[in-house]
Amino acid sequence: MNDFNALTTALLEFRDARDWRQFHSLRNLIISLNLEAAELLELTQWKSDAEIEALPAEAQSAEALRDECADVLLYLLLIADTAGIDLAAAAQAKLLKNAEKYPVDKAFGSRAKYDRL
Amino acid sequence: MNDFNALTTALLEFRDARDWRQFHSLRNLIISLNLEAAELLELTQWKSDAEIEALPAEAQSAEALRDECADVLLYLLLIADTAGIDLAAAAQAKLLKNAEKYPVDKAFGSRAKYDRL
Amino acid sequence: MNDFNALTTALLEFRDARDWRQFHSLRNLIISLNLEAAELLELTQWKSDAEIEALPAEAQSAEALRDECADVLLYLLLIADTAGIDLAAAAQAKLLKNAEKYPVDKAFGSRAKYDRL
Amino acid sequence: MNDFNALTTALLEFRDARDWRQFHSLRNLIISLNLEAAELLELTQWKSDAEIEALPAEAQSAEALRDECADVLLYLLLIADTAGIDLAAAAQAKLLKNAEKYPVDKAFGSRAKYDRL
Repeated sequence: MNDFNALTTALLEFRDARDWRQFHSLRNLIISLNLEAAELLELTQWKSDAEIEALPAEAQSAEALRDECADVLLYLLLIADTAGIDLAAAAQAKLLKNAEKYPVDKAFGSRAKYDRL
Repeated sequence: MNDFNALTTALLEFRDARDWRQFHSLRNLIISLNLEAAELLELTQWKSDAEIEALPAEAQSAEALRDECADVLLYLLLIADTAGIDLAAAAQAKLLKNAEKYPVDKAFGSRAKYDRL
Repeated sequence: MNDFNALTTALLEFRDARDWRQFHSLRNLIISLNLEAAELLELTQWKSDAEIEALPAEAQSAEALRDECADVLLYLLLIADTAGIDLAAAAQAKLLKNAEKYPVDKAFGSRAKYDRL
Repeated sequence: MNDFNALTTALLEFRDARDWRQFHSLRNLIISLNLEAAELLELTQWKSDAEIEALPAEAQSAEALRDECADVLLYLLLIADTAGIDLAAAAQAKLLKNAEKYPVDKAFGSRAKYDRL
């Protein structure tokens, strides 16, 4: 089940079995996505770059990373479903936009924002 | 191309063509995910619930929603690749955890956190 | 002790008594400020506007609001001290900038961003 | 004018001259605080620790830091006013709580959270 549609189907079943659609306004979902993103960020708090890179190699931290990434994805799928967004298509389209904003010859090896290239 | 692997492949090609792997520490990717989540939230700023629900029906706002959701997904895919996470499997596993934390008979129609059910 | 300097003095004493200056890079402090802002946001999660407005009238919620606002302020004071910012002066200066960006005759009763006024 | 009350008075005058109180629900203010915190975080995006520490010494970056810190403070003052919070008192009270959670003999030189000391 390595695709967005299958995951969304399972997620909507989970939601509807609990009658939670009523709480899932677009605003609430977007706020919840931000809170889950912050929990992911919290896993890096007070840590050095080296310590953060080592997190995936430690079982408990790796599970925490997986869980927080999963939470972000689950809310993103709910937002996409609510807003009528085809997430895979949106990501492909955005990647094309980014390729135009960051042409290889100008952006190669650079961290600069597109308006400073 | 409606799955995670195909999207990740395209994304890594985009990244490597620009020699950007050097900037994509786990910390930097997680921070960038948070910034994109905030840009999604900004689309709702100062708006009423009704105005937010109407965003997907207006072309320019719908595109902005798609783009910001895409940006969140793209960083999530980069984080997953960097941390060795199978995102679809992680989301399925988290959904099972959530189903245990929120049993249908207790969580039905409730917004309470699992520790208050 | 209703001013920034007195509060900062007490805060730096707290920090230095624990030898925590070594962890307080500007990056770490800014990340921590974001995490505290998210905890404040979490107090509003899944709540209606009316429920949120009622939080200050309920003792436990009021204390949670006070604590999270305090955490944001404490990190802001640490950031200001580390970056050499006079916070009160910066806020006054920003208020003047905002007054120019949002002239009363154009901004009266409007939620529009300054570039759309 | 180095205190909270004077700053709040100027801020409320600014707000009321524009008839903006109607938009300043507690939810909207807390969301806006989070967005300003993210803008502060964005100033550190893609930068090394050394580059971030150097920001205050560069005029344009220093101004950006001052402005974003100011924005966070201004929303915090509006939240405090709306929720009936004495911000200076709340910060002092939280500092006392923190001193109990992080006793000097256990917390000295440690980054651990209080529940792991």
